Amino acid sequence: MARLPRIADLTPNVSGWNFFLCSRKDSRVGRTGSAYLDISLQDVSGETRAKVFQDVDAITLEFDAGEFVKAQGRTNTYQGRTEIILDKIRRVIPDKDKADGFREDECIRCAPRPVDEMWAELLARIDSVSDPHLRALLLRIVTTHADRLRIWPAARTVHHAYRSGLLEHILQIMKVSLFLADEYGARRDLLIAGALLHDIGKLREMAYETTTEYTVEGNLVGHIVIGVGMLHDAVREEPGMPAELVTEIEHLILSHHGALELGSPVVPKTIEAFLLAAVDDLDAKLHQIRQHLEADDSPGRFTAMHKRLDRSLLKPSGS
Amino acid sequence: MARLPRIADLTPNVSGWNFFLCSRKDSRVGRTGSAYLDISLQDVSGETRAKVFQDVDAITLEFDAGEFVKAQGRTNTYQGRTEIILDKIRRVIPDKDKADGFREDECIRCAPRPVDEMWAELLARIDSVSDPHLRALLLRIVTTHADRLRIWPAARTVHHAYRSGLLEHILQIMKVSLFLADEYGARRDLLIAGALLHDIGKLREMAYETTTEYTVEGNLVGHIVIGVGMLHDAVREEPGMPAELVTEIEHLILSHHGALELGSPVVPKTIEAFLLAAVDDLDAKLHQIRQHLEADDSPGRFTAMHKRLDRSLLKPSGS
Amino acid sequence: MARLPRIADLTPNVSGWNFFLCSRKDSRVGRTGSAYLDISLQDVSGETRAKVFQDVDAITLEFDAGEFVKAQGRTNTYQGRTEIILDKIRRVIPDKDKADGFREDECIRCAPRPVDEMWAELLARIDSVSDPHLRALLLRIVTTHADRLRIWPAARTVHHAYRSGLLEHILQIMKVSLFLADEYGARRDLLIAGALLHDIGKLREMAYETTTEYTVEGNLVGHIVIGVGMLHDAVREEPGMPAELVTEIEHLILSHHGALELGSPVVPKTIEAFLLAAVDDLDAKLHQIRQHLEADDSPGRFTAMHKRLDRSLLKPSGS
Amino acid sequence: MARLPRIADLTPNVSGWNFFLCSRKDSRVGRTGSAYLDISLQDVSGETRAKVFQDVDAITLEFDAGEFVKAQGRTNTYQGRTEIILDKIRRVIPDKDKADGFREDECIRCAPRPVDEMWAELLARIDSVSDPHLRALLLRIVTTHADRLRIWPAARTVHHAYRSGLLEHILQIMKVSLFLADEYGARRDLLIAGALLHDIGKLREMAYETTTEYTVEGNLVGHIVIGVGMLHDAVREEPGMPAELVTEIEHLILSHHGALELGSPVVPKTIEAFLLAAVDDLDAKLHQIRQHLEADDSPGRFTAMHKRLDRSLLKPSGS
Amino acid sequence: MARLPRIADLTPNVSGWNFFLCSRKDSRVGRTGSAYLDISLQDVSGETRAKVFQDVDAITLEFDAGEFVKAQGRTNTYQGRTEIILDKIRRVIPDKDKADGFREDECIRCAPRPVDEMWAELLARIDSVSDPHLRALLLRIVTTHADRLRIWPAARTVHHAYRSGLLEHILQIMKVSLFLADEYGARRDLLIAGALLHDIGKLREMAYETTTEYTVEGNLVGHIVIGVGMLHDAVREEPGMPAELVTEIEHLILSHHGALELGSPVVPKTIEAFLLAAVDDLDAKLHQIRQHLEADDSPGRFTAMHKRLDRSLLKPSGS
Amino acid sequence: MARLPRIADLTPNVSGWNFFLCSRKDSRVGRTGSAYLDISLQDVSGETRAKVFQDVDAITLEFDAGEFVKAQGRTNTYQGRTEIILDKIRRVIPDKDKADGFREDECIRCAPRPVDEMWAELLARIDSVSDPHLRALLLRIVTTHADRLRIWPAARTVHHAYRSGLLEHILQIMKVSLFLADEYGARRDLLIAGALLHDIGKLREMAYETTTEYTVEGNLVGHIVIGVGMLHDAVREEPGMPAELVTEIEHLILSHHGALELGSPVVPKTIEAFLLAAVDDLDAKLHQIRQHLEADDSPGRFTAMHKRLDRSLLKPSGS
Repeated sequence: MARLPRIADLTPNVSGWNFFLCSRKDSRVGRTGSAYLDISLQDVSGETRAKVFQDVDAITLEFDAGEFVKAQGRTNTYQGRTEIILDKIRRVIPDKDKADGFREDECIRCAPRPVDEMWAELLARIDSVSDPHLRALLLRIVTTHADRLRIWPAARTVHHAYRSGLLEHILQIMKVSLFLADEYGARRDLLIAGALLHDIGKLREMAYETTTEYTVEGNLVGHIVIGVGMLHDAVREEPGMPAELVTEIEHLILSHHGALELGSPVVPKTIEAFLLAAVDDLDAKLHQIRQHLEADDSPGRFTAMHKRLDRSLLKPSGS
Repeated sequence: MARLPRIADLTPNVSGWNFFLCSRKDSRVGRTGSAYLDISLQDVSGETRAKVFQDVDAITLEFDAGEFVKAQGRTNTYQGRTEIILDKIRRVIPDKDKADGFREDECIRCAPRPVDEMWAELLARIDSVSDPHLRALLLRIVTTHADRLRIWPAARTVHHAYRSGLLEHILQIMKVSLFLADEYGARRDLLIAGALLHDIGKLREMAYETTTEYTVEGNLVGHIVIGVGMLHDAVREEPGMPAELVTEIEHLILSHHGALELGSPVVPKTIEAFLLAAVDDLDAKLHQIRQHLEADDSPGRFTAMHKRLDRSLLKPSGS
Repeated sequence: MARLPRIADLTPNVSGWNFFLCSRKDSRVGRTGSAYLDISLQDVSGETRAKVFQDVDAITLEFDAGEFVKAQGRTNTYQGRTEIILDKIRRVIPDKDKADGFREDECIRCAPRPVDEMWAELLARIDSVSDPHLRALLLRIVTTHADRLRIWPAARTVHHAYRSGLLEHILQIMKVSLFLADEYGARRDLLIAGALLHDIGKLREMAYETTTEYTVEGNLVGHIVIGVGMLHDAVREEPGMPAELVTEIEHLILSHHGALELGSPVVPKTIEAFLLAAVDDLDAKLHQIRQHLEADDSPGRFTAMHKRLDRSLLKPSGS
Repeated sequence: MARLPRIADLTPNVSGWNFFLCSRKDSRVGRTGSAYLDISLQDVSGETRAKVFQDVDAITLEFDAGEFVKAQGRTNTYQGRTEIILDKIRRVIPDKDKADGFREDECIRCAPRPVDEMWAELLARIDSVSDPHLRALLLRIVTTHADRLRIWPAARTVHHAYRSGLLEHILQIMKVSLFLADEYGARRDLLIAGALLHDIGKLREMAYETTTEYTVEGNLVGHIVIGVGMLHDAVREEPGMPAELVTEIEHLILSHHGALELGSPVVPKTIEAFLLAAVDDLDAKLHQIRQHLEADDSPGRFTAMHKRLDRSLLKPSGS
Repeated sequence: MARLPRIADLTPNVSGWNFFLCSRKDSRVGRTGSAYLDISLQDVSGETRAKVFQDVDAITLEFDAGEFVKAQGRTNTYQGRTEIILDKIRRVIPDKDKADGFREDECIRCAPRPVDEMWAELLARIDSVSDPHLRALLLRIVTTHADRLRIWPAARTVHHAYRSGLLEHILQIMKVSLFLADEYGARRDLLIAGALLHDIGKLREMAYETTTEYTVEGNLVGHIVIGVGMLHDAVREEPGMPAELVTEIEHLILSHHGALELGSPVVPKTIEAFLLAAVDDLDAKLHQIRQHLEADDSPGRFTAMHKRLDRSLLKPSGS
Repeated sequence: MARLPRIADLTPNVSGWNFFLCSRKDSRVGRTGSAYLDISLQDVSGETRAKVFQDVDAITLEFDAGEFVKAQGRTNTYQGRTEIILDKIRRVIPDKDKADGFREDECIRCAPRPVDEMWAELLARIDSVSDPHLRALLLRIVTTHADRLRIWPAARTVHHAYRSGLLEHILQIMKVSLFLADEYGARRDLLIAGALLHDIGKLREMAYETTTEYTVEGNLVGHIVIGVGMLHDAVREEPGMPAELVTEIEHLILSHHGALELGSPVVPKTIEAFLLAAVDDLDAKLHQIRQHLEADDSPGRFTAMHKRLDRSLLKPSGS
C-alpha cells in the first residue's frame, strides 16, 4: 500500500498509510447505536480528523492520545471536509518504524515558517535596539532560553497551539507593534522588549513535549508574574540596566492583558503598554478566528458558535 | 502694543493682543473669596488658558463662550504651563477688526496637517479600491459630503475635537487598517470603505460651526445608524453595487464599536470588522492619552486621573 | 385505520394516521442502550412529541426535519403528557397524498386568531392615526409587505415562533401600548407606528418557509437596523412626512430593546420609547412563560429551569 | 399688598405674599461673589423656586427648611421658568397667621386627585376581589393603616414624593395591572393584593410629617420585608386565608423589584409577579421622566442628564 | 458472605454485603456501547460510588434513588478511589431486613460530631447570652424547632448537605464569630443570635426526609425571609424584647449573604452584620473545597473544575 | 498660655498651644461668603479638625499641609465633635521649637500598640514556624526590611493609614488566620508566611516620610508583584527552601485580593489562599468601618455615605 501524502495535501479517495501524532481520541456512539472512535491526527503540516468503525474494541487498546501512531485507511469527504476512515492504527514501534521513515519531527504540527528563519528575524530585531544595556539584556534572555523559545507553543488550546507557535506570535506582535510605534510616536526599544517578553513566562507556565500541560507554577503563579521573575533573573546579570527602564518593561508584561478582570494586576499606564495590549489582543483573536473558519464544517453561510468569542462568524464568500 | 504670537508659540512674559475663539468661560471664586474669569482661548495652532482678575463684573458682559474675541494681556507661567492674564477682552466687531487682520480661519483650532493634503490622500486611497462599483460609490459619497467632510471634528470633546479632526481620524484609521489587512490577509477594499464610512454619520450627528453640538437626530438615532442611512442613499445611485458587499460594509459601520454595551447593535463577525473595531478603539484611546499628557499640570511623575480611562498615566520621563 | 384528530384534540389511547410537519428529528439512546427516534410533529393547532422504537434504521431514511410527513401510530401518556408512538412515518408524496386530504396549511402551526381577522384589526388601527402623512405611510408599508407580514413568525425559537406570530405580537403590543398611552399621556400616533414597525425588520432578518432561518443580512445587520431602512424606503415615497416625526419613529425602532447590552444602539429618550420597550419586553416574556408552562413535564410544583429567564416557574395550582 | 395666587397659577411680574412650606434652603455664591439664598417653596398645587438677594445674613436666621413660612416678593422669569424674588420671608407664627388665613393643608404639596376620591376607588377595588378571605384581609389591612395610607408619600425624593403619593401610585399600578391581567390571563385577585401591598412597608420604612426621612427599621430591614411582616400580622387575624395564597402574595411583595441586584430577595416566578414588577417599574420611571421634563430648565431640545436614568430626554416639541 | 465494613472504612478487594441509602442512580453507556448502572451509596460514615455491569435490565427495576437498599459485591480501585462492583442490589424489605440488622439511622449520611454533643454546645452558647430577653427568645426558638434543627441538612447539594449539617454549620459559624467578636470589639449577644438564626429559615425552605427538596414557600419566599418570619413568631411570645434589638437581628438575617445580587435584600450596615456575612461565606466555601478535594479523581496535581467556584484547586501535596 | 493636652484627650473650652503635623489644609467659603481655613492636625494619639477664621490671607502663607506646625487656639464643639478654633498657626522652626519641647515623633499619628511590643510578637510568630528553611527565610526578610517594616503605614488613605499601621495589620491578620487555620485544618506555616508577606510590597509601593505617596514602581507594578520580587530576593539567599513551598507562598501573595477584578492576577486555589484573602478583606473593611463611625458627624442614627463601601452605617446605639 502507498504512503499517504502530508495532511495539508490530502485529497478525497486516496488510500495508504503514514505516521502521525494522535492528539485526540474519543469513543462515540453513532446514529445506529454502535460505538466508533473519533480521532485527531497531526503531522507537521496540519491536523485532520479520522474515524475507526471496525474492530473498535480491539483497536482502541493499540494506541492513546499523545502517542505517535502508524495509521492506514482511505480518505473520505464528510460535510465538506476531508477525513480518513481507518482500517488500522497502532502506536509507533520506534526501532522498527524508523526503518520505514518514521521521524518525530515530521509528525508534530508546527508553525508555518521555518524556525531558523524566525530565529534569525528575532535576533535582527534585538540587534536593532538602540539602548546597549537593553540590547544586551534581551540577547541574554533569548540565549538563556533558546531551547524552549524555539519550539514552545503559544497556548495549550486557544491560539498558536503548536510547535514554535510562541515564537511566531512574538514576531508578529513585534512587527505590528513597531509599525504602530512609528505611527503613534511610541518608543521602539520598549516595544521590542515588550513583544519579546510579554508571554515569556509561558516557557514555565506550560510543560510541553508532544502535548502541552499547565505546571503547578503555571496554575498558582501564571505566566505574567513568572515572566517578570525571568526578567529579574536576567537584569541581575546586567547591572547597567537603568532601573526605571526595567520598571517600564515590567509594566508592559504585567499590563498586557489590558484589564484587571483579564488577569493583569495593573492596567496599561503608558502609550507603549496600551499599544502592546491592543496588538496582543488583536493577534490572538484573529488567529482564533482563522482557526475557527478553517475547522468549521457547519452548513450555511455562518460558522457554528465560537464559544470564547460568543458569536458565529461569516464564512468567506468564496469558500 | 504688539500682536501676540500664535498660541503654539507663546512664551512667558510677553505682552500684546490677538484674536481668538473663546471656547470656554467660567466664573470662579479665588482663594481670597473674590471672583475671576477662567477662560479657554483657541487659534489655529492650539488652545491656552486665560484669566481675568480685574473689572470682572464689567468685562464679563463683553463676550461669551463660542464667540470670536479680541484679547489683550501678558503671558504668565502657572503650575508649569503658560497662560495669559488678560487686561481686556471683548467680542470681535467684524467690520472693524478685519482691518486689523481678524480672520475667522486663523482663530479656529485645526488638525495639524493641511486639509488639502489630507483630501488628496483620501482621494488616492479611494482610487486604489479594486472593485469598480465600490470605488465609484465611495467617490460619490465623499463628493456629496465634501463640504462637511473636509472640516468636521471627530467628536464634541473626546478626541480629534477640532476642525478637520474627522478627516484626520479617518485617514489614520485607513492607514493602520491597510497595514494590518496585509499582515492578516484581510480585504483592502472593505477596510478602505470601513475606515471612510465608520464615523460618516457624525456629519449629521453633530452640528458644527465654531462649536459642536449634538442634533436631535444625533441624540435619537446616533452616528452609527445615520451612517448606514447615508450609505443606503449613495447605493441607490450605484445600482451595480453587489448586495452582499453592501451588507458587509453596513456590518463594518454597525459593529465598529466592538460590543453591544458600547453602542454597536451587532458585534464584529468578519475579520475586517474585528480589525476595524480594534484600530478605531486604539486610535481614539491613544489620541485621548496624548491630549491628557499634554494638558496635565499636576505635580509628580503621574498625571491626574483620566476619568474616561479611569487611571492616571505615567508622564514621559523627559518631560 | 382512522384519521387522528388535530394535535390540540389528541387524547390517550387513540390509534390512527394523519399529516404533519416534522419540526425536529433526533436520534437518541434509551435506558437499555438501543436507539430510537425522538420527533416533534406540528399541525395548525399545535405541536406534539412522537417516538419511533421499531425499525429505526430503516424508518430514519424516510423523512427529515422540515418535511411534511404522513405518520401512523397510537397515542400514549408519558410524564403527564400525550405523545404518539409511531409505527410508520414517511415524507409526504404530494400528488398521491392530496387525494387523501393532505393540505400544507393544515400542517403548519399557526397563531390562534384567524389571519384575516388580525389583518382587519391592523388596518383599523392604522385608520385611527390622526396625522394624515403618517397614516398614509403606515398603510403604504403594510401594503408593500403584506405577503410576508401576514404569515411571518415573530422569532425563530423564542416566542410567537409560528405562522402569523409576528402579526399577533404586533397587534398585542399595539393594544397594550394604546391603553398605556391614554393612562400616561403618551402620543397614540407614535405608538401605533412604533408597535407596527419595531420588529418589521424581521421580515428580512429571517427567511421563512416551513422552518425559519437567519439570513446573511439578518446576522450582519439585525432586524433593528433593517427596520429603519424599510422605514426610510417608505418615507421616500411620502415626501410630506415631517422630518422630526420620522426621527422619533426611528428612535422607537432603535431603542425598543431598552438597553445597549440588549442590542439597541440608543436607549429610550422619549416617553413613547420607554413605554414601547416595556410593553415589548413584557409581551415577549409572558409568551415565553406560557410556552414553558405548557411544555414542561417535570414532576413537582415547579417547572424545570427556563434557561433564558434563568429560573424555574410555579405551575398554576389547578394544573 | 395682595395675596399671591397658588403656585400652579403664578404668572410673571406679580407682587404679593402667601404662606408656603419651605422644602429646601441653600446658601449660594453668585457670579459677583456675593451670597444669596436659593429656596424651594411648596403649596398644595406644586413647588416653585425662590431667591433672597438682600439682607441675606439677617433673613437666613428667620426660617429653616421643613418649616411653614410667610413670604413676600415679586415673580420673575429666569431661563424660561417663573420664580419668586423675595423681599421678606419668616417662619409662620401659628396663632397670629391663622387669622390671615394660614392653613397647614394648603401649604403641603399633594397628589393631584382628592384623597377621598382615591380612597373610595381603593375600597371599590378591594370590594371586587372574588375570594372572600382575601377580600376581608385586604379590607382589614387598609382599615388598620388608613391614617398613614391616606397621606403617605411613595418615596423620599424619587417619584410620587408628596402627600398621598403612595395611594396615587397604588391605584395607578392597580388599574394598569388589572388591564394587563385581562389581556394576559393573569389572576385579578392576586394583582389587586399585589398592587395594594407591594409598597405597604413604606408606611414604616419612612417617617413622614412635612418632610420624609428613613427610619432605623427602614434602613436595616427595608420596605419589602417590612411589608411581608405587615401582611403576616393581618393574616394572623384572618385564619381562613389559604396558606398557598398567602405565599403567593408574599412572593409578589418580595419579587416586585424584579431582580436580586435591585433588592428583591427572590425573582418573579409567577405570571402575576412578572406583571406586577413590570408595571411598577414602568409607573415609577414614567413619573420620574414627567418630573424631570417639568423641572428642567436647560437650553436646547434635550434636558440635562437624568442621573438615575443616566440619559438626557427629548423635550416635547410643543414646549 | 461477610458483611462489608462502613463506607469510611472500605479497603480494596473486600467482598460482602451491607445496607445503604441509594442517593443517586444513573444509567450510562460504557466505552463498548453497553449500558451499566452508576450509583451512589451512603451510610452514616460517608458516601461511595458503586456500579452494576451485569443483568442491568433486571436489576434496575429492583430499586430507585432515595430508597434504602441491600447491596452485595466486591470493592475495586478505579482512578485512585475505592468503589463497589455490585452483583446484587434491591430495595430493603423492612420487616425481613431488620432481622439482619437493618437500621435506617446507620444508612443516612450524618455530620461527623454526635448530635447530642452538638446540641449541648448550642444550649451552652445560648446560656452565655447576657441579655435575659434575648437569651429567653433564643431558647424558645431552639425548643420550638428542636425536632428539625437537630437533623436538618444545611443545603440540598452545596455544603453540609447531610443529616445535622445545619446544626454543625451553625455551631462553627458561632465559634468563629465569637472569636472575631472579641478581636474586633463586636457584640457577642448579637453574633450568637445571628449565627443561630441566619439560616433558620432552611427548616421550612427545604423538606427533608432521606432526600432534600425545596418547598413551594422555599422557592417563592426563600430562607432569608422565612427566617425573619420565624423570628417574629418567637418575638411575639417574648414581649420584653427591645424593639431595636429585634431590628438588628432581622438585619443580621437579611444581610448575611453580603450583597444584593447574592439574595440579601439589604447589605450589611453594622459591624456584626459584616462579620457574620464574612464568616458564613468562608465556612461555606471551605466546606465546598474540602468536599471537592475529597471527591475529585482527576489525574495530576490539580482537581477538575469546581463549577460554582469556577476554578480548579491544588491537591494537598501528600495526597 | 498653657500647652494643650494630646488630641485624644482634648475637651471643650480649653485654650492653649501645641505642636502638630498638619495633614490637610483647605481654603473654604463660609455661609456669609467670607473665606476660612479648614485644617486637619495630628499628633501621636490621633487627628482633629481645626479652623482659622481671622487674618486668613496672612496666616495661610505661614504653613502648608505636610509640615509640622505650632498652633494656638481654643477648643470648641461643632456637630457633636471637638475642634480647635485657631488664633495662630505657623510652621515649626526646629532649632527654636525644640527648646519648647517639639519632638517629631510626638506629632505623628501612630498605631495604638507600641512598636517594640508588636515587633516582639512578630518575631515570636516567626519563631513558631515549624519548617526550618521557611523560619530562616522569614527571619531574613524581616531583618532586611526592619527599618521600614517597623514604621510603614498600611495604606495611603484607606485603612491603617498611620505610622506602624502595616505592622499592626500584619499581626492582626496573622492572629486571626492562625485561629482559623486550627479551625479548618489549614497549614500554620503557610499562613504565618502569607500574613507577613501579603502586603510586604507596600514597603516599595509607597514612599513614606510624614506623608505617604505612591512611587513610580508602585504605580506601574503594584505591591502584589513587588512583594513576590522581594520574596525571590530572599529565597536566593536560602537555597534550601523547597521549590513548591515557595510557589505556594507566591500564590498566597498573588491571590490575596481574592479576585481578578480586585487586582490579583490569580484567584485563590488552596485552602490557605482562600482563608488569607477572606481575613485580609474582613480586617481592612472593619478598620474602615471603625474609622468612618469615629469620624462621622452627620445627624441621625446613620452615618453619611461611605463611598468605598457604598452605604451608610448604623451608629452604635450608645453613641
